[in-house]
Amino acid sequence: MKMTNYQQLTRTFLRLSRFSHLSSIASWDMFAMMPPGGSQARGEALAEMSVLTHQILTDKQVGQWIDGAEQENLNDVERANLQEIKRHYEQASLLPEALVEAKSLAGSRCEHAWRTQRPNNDWEGFSQNLKEVVKLSREEAKLRAEAKGCSRYDALLDIFEPQMTSARLDALFADLKSWLPDLLARATEKQAQRTLIAPEGPFPTATQRELGLEAMKMLGFDFNGGRLDVSAHPFCGGVPEDVRITTRYNENELFSALFGVIHETGHARYEQNLPREWPGQPVQLARSTAIHESQSLFFEMQLGRSEAFLTRLLPHIVQRFGDQPAFAPENYVAWNQRVKPGYIRVDADEVSYPAHVVLRYEIERALIDGDIEVEDIPTLWDEKMQAWLGLSTKGNYRDGCMQDIHWTDGGFGYFPSYTLGAMYAAQLFHAARAALPQLNADIAQGDFSALFDWLRQNIWQHGSRFSTSQLITNATGEDLSARYFRAHLEARYL
Amino acid sequence: MKMTNYQQLTRTFLRLSRFSHLSSIASWDMFAMMPPGGSQARGEALAEMSVLTHQILTDKQVGQWIDGAEQENLNDVERANLQEIKRHYEQASLLPEALVEAKSLAGSRCEHAWRTQRPNNDWEGFSQNLKEVVKLSREEAKLRAEAKGCSRYDALLDIFEPQMTSARLDALFADLKSWLPDLLARATEKQAQRTLIAPEGPFPTATQRELGLEAMKMLGFDFNGGRLDVSAHPFCGGVPEDVRITTRYNENELFSALFGVIHETGHARYEQNLPREWPGQPVQLARSTAIHESQSLFFEMQLGRSEAFLTRLLPHIVQRFGDQPAFAPENYVAWNQRVKPGYIRVDADEVSYPAHVVLRYEIERALIDGDIEVEDIPTLWDEKMQAWLGLSTKGNYRDGCMQDIHWTDGGFGYFPSYTLGAMYAAQLFHAARAALPQLNADIAQGDFSALFDWLRQNIWQHGSRFSTSQLITNATGEDLSARYFRAHLEARYL
Ligand SMILES: [Zn+2]
Ligand SMILES: [Zn+2]
Repeated sequence: MKMTNYQQLTRTFLRLSRFSHLSSIASWDMFAMMPPGGSQARGEALAEMSVLTHQILTDKQVGQWIDGAEQENLNDVERANLQEIKRHYEQASLLPEALVEAKSLAGSRCEHAWRTQRPNNDWEGFSQNLKEVVKLSREEAKLRAEAKGCSRYDALLDIFEPQMTSARLDALFADLKSWLPDLLARATEKQAQRTLIAPEGPFPTATQRELGLEAMKMLGFDFNGGRLDVSAHPFCGGVPEDVRITTRYNENELFSALFGVIHETGHARYEQNLPREWPGQPVQLARSTAIHESQSLFFEMQLGRSEAFLTRLLPHIVQRFGDQPAFAPENYVAWNQRVKPGYIRVDADEVSYPAHVVLRYEIERALIDGDIEVEDIPTLWDEKMQAWLGLSTKGNYRDGCMQDIHWTDGGFGYFPSYTLGAMYAAQLFHAARAALPQLNADIAQGDFSALFDWLRQNIWQHGSRFSTSQLITNATGEDLSARYFRAHLEARYL
Repeated sequence: MKMTNYQQLTRTFLRLSRFSHLSSIASWDMFAMMPPGGSQARGEALAEMSVLTHQILTDKQVGQWIDGAEQENLNDVERANLQEIKRHYEQASLLPEALVEAKSLAGSRCEHAWRTQRPNNDWEGFSQNLKEVVKLSREEAKLRAEAKGCSRYDALLDIFEPQMTSARLDALFADLKSWLPDLLARATEKQAQRTLIAPEGPFPTATQRELGLEAMKMLGFDFNGGRLDVSAHPFCGGVPEDVRITTRYNENELFSALFGVIHETGHARYEQNLPREWPGQPVQLARSTAIHESQSLFFEMQLGRSEAFLTRLLPHIVQRFGDQPAFAPENYVAWNQRVKPGYIRVDADEVSYPAHVVLRYEIERALIDGDIEVEDIPTLWDEKMQAWLGLSTKGNYRDGCMQDIHWTDGGFGYFPSYTLGAMYAAQLFHAARAALPQLNADIAQGDFSALFDWLRQNIWQHGSRFSTSQLITNATGEDLSARYFRAHLEARYL
């Protein structure tokens, strides 16, 4: 029996998803397990695989199947899947193979060297590698922009956030900028009136790990299909059937790793609860990076740092590390809701976090659009950090522009997702609370089932069936608005 | 510039080696890291990859390039490489894609289920999966045998041990059988005259791991290009640039994990010291499984259990676990040179080990040649264990025919390598000692550099440049003979 065009496509994408499985695990390994000497061979292996998948995906035949499938009789899910297939095909077809391979190689090289360059504060060395990554990303942006008829930066943004534009982003961030600096100042001032007792370590790594595993269990992480490990830069990787999250431990700091784990658990639960009815098909992938981040921030910020959840968590902490003055309930809650502008984005509180993102957004947009060069980054970074948070990063590259891993991989266009995610999370939590009047009592009793059912029903189970706008409108009654994020911050911090 | 046929081949094999890199790491992960829920997706991903590499390797074009390259002007190494390329091509071309995929899937399924079936002693469940593996392996053997004009079992043997035949194996094993039972009886009798003090645990896993890492360091393992982890069945995997060895710990048993680590370190050093001048080319791969095993047994048995090495190791053991009567030097050496026939091959002493191998060899040959069926295995196993070692495995599948992982993956033809390896190891150690008069003194001082240089020069650096016979003749002055193994056992145990 002759296969339909649509069947040819699903077979091709199933095959691609299996190759992507191997790359995902090898990438996780690269960050979590691999010794330094394996770096070059691993980079080459992953690059070879990205060339292969690029070849398969961009085969002219795929384009013909897409054209054919559009005339075929498809149900709603298949139609949505075809649309995603088309999006992936078009995105990939714009790039010549040589560029794909060069980007993958340059990214691996830059990331690998960063691991030793960052502790050495070696901007000189790092920027050499980064220049190559930027050069290749600009080439990519140019090709994409010409095909889509948009600005170069918008063309990259579209990879992570389909339908998002810098015009819309500018509007959302302008809203934010109109009230956030004032809110940040007032929150900081309010908190300055109270002296908090800092937790006193050491907090042994092994015990921190056990606590993290316990939090993952509370939050429904499926250990039959996932793991917790360590990497320099925490992330959620692997595949939906086997989700790998990582964190990093500091024996003097208890809550950084713990909330890192809770954050990645939000990402993981999204992955673990994506639909599985259409094996290997793009329609069962996560909707976008901002929606992904909304799930991790839902877990970390909306739920995780709420007074009800913190209170629920406290006995587990005391049980493992013994009691101490910092763990007096009021002090402990206040400590975990501190607003304390700092250098490091991943350790930032949710009020100052958007500053880190807007800063990077403005720099990376200028970088891709060719308005600035790699050499200009440290000065711009310092200026913007001074303006937003009053902190100087002059000469301190390690805690400045070398703190992140995103640019090393050429992931320009990704950073806005963090703050979009925070906004989506607030909007979703608001809707969930409206739908679940018992929510606070449930959380206090450690019963998150209704909340997770709500997420499963409204977000997780849909994969990429709907556009982001549709998805968020179906779930909350309206498209993305910054006002729920503002209301959340005001309620918690003012 | 037009590429030569030979260049086309090296480019293709470089590409294949990169894909194989990803499969190797994903396989290591499957055994050492993966949670159970990831099993099906991983199995499918690896199977898809084996289909792909099979397609690339068996492309008609490859055959044409081989024919063309044979007419080209090649140096010695290139000529050896071409011969290996041809061997891989012919071996792969014999199998239809569907069989390759089915074998990979059935192997993954069987291995995965084995993990829970073995502890449950579930032969009924296990044999169902194994039947499918045997069925596919017989199909494979039939195809290979027809093409090579040899017996079915010989056709599988040839994959692991090029140029080895069951006729030659029968001669070597007949030699062994003529003196080993008597030697085993005399050694057992001799040792029975003395009562040994058993080490008393518990020996915490974390400390055992540290001791293992220290032994690896003593033995020159390059941690910049490798790791030590845990798996149900110890193995050496990964890629030469990043070698992954595993062990398993039992808190009541100190030496099992330790000598397991020393064994895998032998495999690892071979991999880590293979030539790297011809990236991705088969000529830089290990020569054969028996030569591989000769390196691990060189480390574990020839060197590791020698009195000189054991004595050198002792202070490290006492330092970590404290002193106890079992660690009195004489008792400790005798304990680690015990001959004690048991059920488990991987825990066997070197005198009774060949019994385990010959037993499996006879069963797997009959199974592949169609003389017996899967149902017959337990009875045959029990009979042969009774005859060789006086042990009954009736109803005890877990410690009988379900103890190994090789058959689950369809690795029929592999087992003889273990005893061939033991023979090669004894022959090599004999030659090394003749070349290095200072050897015992060096070992006693913990200086293994001359010994490892000898291995590097005679084995490691050659990869697959020479046939096994040539390699061993160059290194020791003659082809494989069982008499060095006999002399070694007699010297140590009688
Ligand atoms: Zn995140
Ligand atoms: Zn071995």
